[in-house]
Amino acid sequence: MTINHRLGPLFTDLYELTMAAGYFDRRLFETATFSLFIRNYPPQRNFFVAAGLQDCLYELESLRFNEEDISFLSDTDLFRADFLSYLKQLRFTGDVHSLPEGTIFFANEPILEITAPLIEAQIVETFLLNTIGFQTLIASKSARCVHSASGRQLIDFSLRRTQGHDAGIKVARSTHIAGFDGTSNVLAGKEYGIPISGTMAHSYVQAFGGDFEAFTSYADTFPNNAVFLIDTFDTLKGASEAVKVARQMKQKGHTLRGVRLDSGDMIRLSQQVRYFLDEAGLEEVKIFASGGFDEFKINQALVEGAAIDAFGVGTSLGVSADAPFADIVYKMVRYGQRHVRKFSPGKESLGGKKQVFRFLQENGFYLKDTIGLRSENFSSGSALLEPVMLSGRMIQPYPTLQEIRHHFKANFAVFPNEYKDLSARIKYPVEVSPRLRDLQPTLLA
Amino acid sequence: MTINHRLGPLFTDLYELTMAAGYFDRRLFETATFSLFIRNYPPQRNFFVAAGLQDCLYELESLRFNEEDISFLSDTDLFRADFLSYLKQLRFTGDVHSLPEGTIFFANEPILEITAPLIEAQIVETFLLNTIGFQTLIASKSARCVHSASGRQLIDFSLRRTQGHDAGIKVARSTHIAGFDGTSNVLAGKEYGIPISGTMAHSYVQAFGGDFEAFTSYADTFPNNAVFLIDTFDTLKGASEAVKVARQMKQKGHTLRGVRLDSGDMIRLSQQVRYFLDEAGLEEVKIFASGGFDEFKINQALVEGAAIDAFGVGTSLGVSADAPFADIVYKMVRYGQRHVRKFSPGKESLGGKKQVFRFLQENGFYLKDTIGLRSENFSSGSALLEPVMLSGRMIQPYPTLQEIRHHFKANFAVFPNEYKDLSARIKYPVEVSPRLRDLQPTLLA
Repeated sequence: MTINHRLGPLFTDLYELTMAAGYFDRRLFETATFSLFIRNYPPQRNFFVAAGLQDCLYELESLRFNEEDISFLSDTDLFRADFLSYLKQLRFTGDVHSLPEGTIFFANEPILEITAPLIEAQIVETFLLNTIGFQTLIASKSARCVHSASGRQLIDFSLRRTQGHDAGIKVARSTHIAGFDGTSNVLAGKEYGIPISGTMAHSYVQAFGGDFEAFTSYADTFPNNAVFLIDTFDTLKGASEAVKVARQMKQKGHTLRGVRLDSGDMIRLSQQVRYFLDEAGLEEVKIFASGGFDEFKINQALVEGAAIDAFGVGTSLGVSADAPFADIVYKMVRYGQRHVRKFSPGKESLGGKKQVFRFLQENGFYLKDTIGLRSENFSSGSALLEPVMLSGRMIQPYPTLQEIRHHFKANFAVFPNEYKDLSARIKYPVEVSPRLRDLQPTLLA
Repeated sequence: MTINHRLGPLFTDLYELTMAAGYFDRRLFETATFSLFIRNYPPQRNFFVAAGLQDCLYELESLRFNEEDISFLSDTDLFRADFLSYLKQLRFTGDVHSLPEGTIFFANEPILEITAPLIEAQIVETFLLNTIGFQTLIASKSARCVHSASGRQLIDFSLRRTQGHDAGIKVARSTHIAGFDGTSNVLAGKEYGIPISGTMAHSYVQAFGGDFEAFTSYADTFPNNAVFLIDTFDTLKGASEAVKVARQMKQKGHTLRGVRLDSGDMIRLSQQVRYFLDEAGLEEVKIFASGGFDEFKINQALVEGAAIDAFGVGTSLGVSADAPFADIVYKMVRYGQRHVRKFSPGKESLGGKKQVFRFLQENGFYLKDTIGLRSENFSSGSALLEPVMLSGRMIQPYPTLQEIRHHFKANFAVFPNEYKDLSARIKYPVEVSPRLRDLQPTLLA
């Protein structure tokens, strides 16, 4: 694969390695459990959609320091030779429990727990946080867009503005998990099998010097897959040129797929363009809109009666502009035989290996969640964290992107609508089990 | 290199390729010029620092569709065989004029102009926008942090929260260009030679069960490179434990480098900890602070008298949280013998190949810029865009990161302080030359 190239274990904060050296010196090799979770909701968010697990499992399975890595670390003069020899033979041998990708979850619920010899569990922190934090953020915002679009088509247009290359690829994947229909991103299409979409930019119309010439020529090249961008000079004039070319196409037995609006008052323009098209007997021609859309603007456009059949959603989704990071952390909750927790003000965490239990209403919709101890059992609640890796090996082939997408869809269908409101005012109830709560005061500092 | 692996030409929006197919069908092979620029300042920004050029030049030099790429495109059933054969032999043969990385520039000034046969110039759009947009955004925010820190040390701590893997690596590079001293990112240290920094997390202290045990052990492993994290349980108690261990270190001839605060009221705590350290004769021990810092919080802390010697700057810098994207665009400004421009409302662009001229005050500080035609000359203004690639080949070896860093530093030193105010209220004057202005009304639509 082009995109899942080796990053390797140097993709880490240095302190993971200095801590590992400290643990090594004192022979702190006991088993630790770390829990990865999001502490707080960003403003106007009240749920998350798990994403990024696949990259994490591949990285854990292939974790090894190669000669070049060791040589670089040696050159820093920070590390002793015995520790570097130890790193050289290090593999990830731990267990991973995780929410399946596409699962809806909430603040403070573990997305993933790692149980492994202390050093192994520690040094993967940075990679896990980076990978799951970003992809989860995008999948979560995508789900909000999907809800706002009420069944209209959504295409990821974000590649040109994402924060770097990996982000561009992972945005396409994360949006697709959460129900987007396609992406403009060709590489993501190739690597993940996501449907790709796109036709022309303003520069195309400019190169031909006018709408009519550009549209005619495009229709010749793509008679069955043409969407004309009609706002390069003037949207309504562009629409009337599109109508002319669409009629010519019809005479040849072809159908114009759509026209695209990319600027101006989308509500008014979409209605006028719909009228033009319908008057010309082109009811089958769809109206695509792009330019500044996010869940809020999609919702507003549709509430105000925009005649838009499909949205290209770009920048603000691709960087999660309203909430560009999640307050995601990876905390030690158990070491050896001790439960441990953190006390720093505002950053307290709960000790102990955990499980998330989800309870449903009689109609099958979500009722509430309970964060409990891994060892607990609730007859009426289903346990969401699943073992996905044991002793460093994935326990079954990873689900396909289609399966993950279906898992999300099934989840989202029974997630009550009151929590999908864009204001995110109503928070889903998440309780802490009495046994987990009772454990906390007794934890050794 | 691990990180500059091949992305290849499928890292693109599909429409670049469908447009290319349209151009190919009509034999639109004439030379085009595209200009890459940022249309507007994000809120509270009034300057940019160019970054990302190196990745772009490498990608342009190595641009080619391999068998796998062609086979994927063929399988989409969108493209005809003659076009795919054409793509297979396609190389980038164009010219690139660019601002050197590290150059300060302003809204609407071209960062880069590409002149190449139309298809070559078009299909690189997505990659260029993604790469330069993000790295420039981060370098710009980093410069603001450097200004706020007034000479105190700055370390990039953002890797765990950046938007994906590539972002993490490029944030380290972009912050270093703009004057950061180091990064926690080990891979960026290896790939770019940036100094790496980091010691311990809360989990380290937790694994030992207490501050004193953790600090003592760490000092044994890293006697000359220890910074103790003192807020795991209680910052002031942590400080007094650090003092004990620092005294023991001193007796053995070692020096504690510093203590780190990561939560609580940093101003009050840093002053109290400084007092503790000084009282104990540990004036040489530095105070590091991390947790939520950006240019605004650094400035506020120092204005209010925080006793902080070095800042770890993480999330909000790494995702440019206040402005997570730039309004960056890539517009055709010339095709064949025609100047071209865009008229879409709110998105107008200026036609013609351009140059940016910078005029200085007598004291050497920036006075104003003028955007003119590439063919213009101003005896007193220096031309900022430089030819960096001719006929698809870089014309000289790429500058080192150190050289780029020095270029920024020299630029920033003569950029008047009034424009560095964090409010960004005062905008630097950028004029359009009369000749460039006069050209616009005559451009064919």
